[in-house]
Amino acid sequence: METINDILGYKNLKIYQNSDMFQFSLDSVLLPNFITINKNTKKILDIGTGNAIIPIILTTKTDAEITAIEIQKDVFELAKKSIKLNFLDSQIKVLHNDINQYYLECNSEEYDIITCNPPYFKVNETSKLNDSEYKIIARHEIKLDLERLMKISSKLLKNKGIIGIVHRPDRLIDIIMTMKKYNIEPKKIRFVYPKKTKEANILLIEGKKNGNPGLKILRPLYSHLDNGNYTLEIQKYFE
Amino acid sequence: METINDILGYKNLKIYQNSDMFQFSLDSVLLPNFITINKNTKKILDIGTGNAIIPIILTTKTDAEITAIEIQKDVFELAKKSIKLNFLDSQIKVLHNDINQYYLECNSEEYDIITCNPPYFKVNETSKLNDSEYKIIARHEIKLDLERLMKISSKLLKNKGIIGIVHRPDRLIDIIMTMKKYNIEPKKIRFVYPKKTKEANILLIEGKKNGNPGLKILRPLYSHLDNGNYTLEIQKYFE
Repeated sequence: METINDILGYKNLKIYQNSDMFQFSLDSVLLPNFITINKNTKKILDIGTGNAIIPIILTTKTDAEITAIEIQKDVFELAKKSIKLNFLDSQIKVLHNDINQYYLECNSEEYDIITCNPPYFKVNETSKLNDSEYKIIARHEIKLDLERLMKISSKLLKNKGIIGIVHRPDRLIDIIMTMKKYNIEPKKIRFVYPKKTKEANILLIEGKKNGNPGLKILRPLYSHLDNGNYTLEIQKYFE
Repeated sequence: METINDILGYKNLKIYQNSDMFQFSLDSVLLPNFITINKNTKKILDIGTGNAIIPIILTTKTDAEITAIEIQKDVFELAKKSIKLNFLDSQIKVLHNDINQYYLECNSEEYDIITCNPPYFKVNETSKLNDSEYKIIARHEIKLDLERLMKISSKLLKNKGIIGIVHRPDRLIDIIMTMKKYNIEPKKIRFVYPKKTKEANILLIEGKKNGNPGLKILRPLYSHLDNGNYTLEIQKYFE
């Protein structure tokens, strides 16, 4: 079912959602609030943009030109509608394409920043059988895995450009090994914990192409209070 | 100056300290409280034991036979005296040796657990000029670096044996890359933050020889309250 929702916390921003495909989650709201943007950021690429939640939030932080790419036709249409709805067509260009194809056509060293909320699960990890194809492609490394994501990013990023992704902490080792393989140096990490007493369940990581070693582990982010409500920091982003 | 101190939080345990060499720190108290010990743990090796603070605390958690190794003669003497003082000679054997030498003589696959609070700084990182040779060797990767530590541990650990180290978060990438190189799979990490609003300043990490992938990021540990006092969890270990 298709609905229009406010992106709460962001006055005036709205987004198209479709419960048969996927809905934007906390993860996608955290990433644009984590990534290091500055005045020199001119071009951003969001890979696997879904309903364009990441680019739409990024427009509140930068005037950079944002390219968003989505492989699934119906999801791409949703992204287009969301961007139009917010009058952001001039800042966000959304492409219906496979990043593996776009990568071949695109100039090297084109982007200052790449963002991605990639599929979290390996292909062999069990999927819910009743998931739609939309969800299966969004959640499993079928069309895009870490190896290809880092290889692609390493080509498309400018020297010293940065990639920021949101992922699951149990994949941290894979992420680091793959970044290093493609000359992307992990520079900052923030772990998100569902509660104070729990293990981390979300990972935000930023790497710099040809960056110098030196990693910062930012202060923890808790998503929920003991009573189940969002914490104040999350409310600011999300509620 | 040599003194005898209580290891506060541990009734009856005392330790020799010498302010010209080094004194046990929070880091060394955290590691034996972090490492995964179980009933099958029979043999433990502590590399670069200093005044044997890690083995002494480990005796409160396990009956395993503990070997402690220290390269510096005077520090080794301090460790011996501390172990005697606590009547722990039968459980802790302390050796005056260089781990690089011991490694050549020791059987492969000898230990269930290896612990180490290694030097944190690369050789080229600036040292305080007035530091004693004791402190320089304890703090800089002169006699032991991550590469050698993991190579040695990979030989001396039993299959599925674990190594736990305490280090600085800015070396996390090096640590992970070196563990993976020697077939040690990082399995759990805990970050220690000086305060709630600060970046992590201590890293506890445990890896398993030939372990399966799958990493847990444990809940954060804060060392200090806003008023500068130790937090309750640290008081339990340390104050």
